[in-house]
Amino acid sequence: MKIAIDAMGGDHAPKEIVLGALSAVKEFQDLEIILYGVKDEIMKYIDGDVPRLEIIHSDEVILGTDEPVRAVRRKKNSSMVMMAQAVADGKADACVSAGNTGALMAAGLFIVGRIEGIERPALAPTLPTLDEKGFVMLDLGANADAKPEHLLQYAVMGSVYAEKVRGIANPRVGLLNIGTEEKKGNELTKEAFKLLKAGQSINFIGNVESRDLLHGPADVVVTDGFTGNMVLKTLEGTAMSVFSMLKDTLTSNLKSKIAAGLIKSDLMKLKGKMDYSEYGGAALFGLKTPVVKAHGSSNARALYNAVRQTREMVKHDVPEKIKTIIKQ
Amino acid sequence: MKIAIDAMGGDHAPKEIVLGALSAVKEFQDLEIILYGVKDEIMKYIDGDVPRLEIIHSDEVILGTDEPVRAVRRKKNSSMVMMAQAVADGKADACVSAGNTGALMAAGLFIVGRIEGIERPALAPTLPTLDEKGFVMLDLGANADAKPEHLLQYAVMGSVYAEKVRGIANPRVGLLNIGTEEKKGNELTKEAFKLLKAGQSINFIGNVESRDLLHGPADVVVTDGFTGNMVLKTLEGTAMSVFSMLKDTLTSNLKSKIAAGLIKSDLMKLKGKMDYSEYGGAALFGLKTPVVKAHGSSNARALYNAVRQTREMVKHDVPEKIKTIIKQ
Repeated sequence: MKIAIDAMGGDHAPKEIVLGALSAVKEFQDLEIILYGVKDEIMKYIDGDVPRLEIIHSDEVILGTDEPVRAVRRKKNSSMVMMAQAVADGKADACVSAGNTGALMAAGLFIVGRIEGIERPALAPTLPTLDEKGFVMLDLGANADAKPEHLLQYAVMGSVYAEKVRGIANPRVGLLNIGTEEKKGNELTKEAFKLLKAGQSINFIGNVESRDLLHGPADVVVTDGFTGNMVLKTLEGTAMSVFSMLKDTLTSNLKSKIAAGLIKSDLMKLKGKMDYSEYGGAALFGLKTPVVKAHGSSNARALYNAVRQTREMVKHDVPEKIKTIIKQ
Repeated sequence: MKIAIDAMGGDHAPKEIVLGALSAVKEFQDLEIILYGVKDEIMKYIDGDVPRLEIIHSDEVILGTDEPVRAVRRKKNSSMVMMAQAVADGKADACVSAGNTGALMAAGLFIVGRIEGIERPALAPTLPTLDEKGFVMLDLGANADAKPEHLLQYAVMGSVYAEKVRGIANPRVGLLNIGTEEKKGNELTKEAFKLLKAGQSINFIGNVESRDLLHGPADVVVTDGFTGNMVLKTLEGTAMSVFSMLKDTLTSNLKSKIAAGLIKSDLMKLKGKMDYSEYGGAALFGLKTPVVKAHGSSNARALYNAVRQTREMVKHDVPEKIKTIIKQ
């Protein structure tokens, strides 16, 4: 199996990306990796010849500030576009980037292409929960607007992923809504509820509320990209604000500093529970081959986890399974 | 000035409602209060004759579990409906309830009635921020779906309130969105951005992100009711989850228990910063007279604050000012 990686994407590229790729290729004997990026930069972190690791030079880089669609169209020699092209040409089975999310979605859509029958790809990370099991949520922003039938497709794609990659039998699908009762919500969720309830290939358990997300209310949670992105940012922002308030409190006087010393390791563990990097990247569902977005702030560990997850998607042929169900 | 209060609404009714009303009537010499509810129950918490306090018996109660519209139509003798009727009949200048939110919105809409020219009333609480200034956000769920022009009306109503009741000159209006750039968002926010930018009577500062809400990114934040409700619940749920994780951590072993003892008062202060009860209730904007929803879990202090806020709305004749601007 071959996975193409954009070595230049992310806040800590290429160093952490290269180190993460090295860990992955060392760990998985069935894995070949192609790194795309500025060769001299990449070689700084590679000591001699590494088995099953290939480096292909690219002289352009898509920046986080680039306008996504334009960047993908114009920067043909960028590490991200070349990586996606390798997948489209059959030179690799999947690809991973920690770079510009919008650009990766555009590269996925225009270069890799959609599965026949899928109207909208969806961005689907695994979100952390207090019991550390996590759950898949989609769409987190690939498409701001969605129709009820798109939410049904998201449910199908999320279910295949939860079952094949995360090993959950008969995964529970929840619809993110502002109340648990069937008739709650806006026009979109009311219509989507009906479609999901009638869905043959999914295990729909009804509406779930955003206040319960950290408790993992379902194995797959579906929503439109606008709401999903909004909720994810609220969740991250609130948790970060509370932790930063806590830090201020714990350094405000001598007594609290002593207390901080006593509980430091416990607090780190607590913060770790909400760490996205342990859960891999956000997969773009609905594309012909797996395209995975690692978190922009990925360190080597996070990149490794994203590759591990991508390997599972290839191994279980997730796109093919989605295609089969969508055709039915 | 006369304010009608539903003494039977809320988790701690009638006790905390009555006690809150007593504090308010004692504090504000220009205030008369009419309490609606089961007289015998109310009298348990009142010692003798209280100046400027009237009690009107009602034998029905709208429950939290009642279907809102049906409850308002059928329970004509409920404390909430009688309270709203008093406002409609001119017997009171405004009303406050901590009861069923949906029912209060229905009572506001059907009994009190909309300001001419306002298409949709909006539920608008003042949300807490880390600097404890707070900001007004609307709509938090009066109408799940909204059109761009509704968001413009929300901006106008929120601005009048922020200026007149909260004393903020030229209040900054932000549009809740999934990015700060002008072209970000879904169809609704993209269209609303244009209308808000062109709005004459408001100080629009552009898009604001949900991750920054606890930092108070604007004085007035507008959004559709579905998104607003979703974001509020995510914010509350995440903060509560983090605090409960923290509590578990602080009681997990002897060392952490010692630490907990040292920082207990600081932590209570921290949690207090996120306490809604200090900010009054959620006003229903766009109705002919002020209708205020106190938090369902209101204690006497929260109810007192909701009455204080309602008194300010009456004093500054907020509905009349909204009407004047909407007409322009």
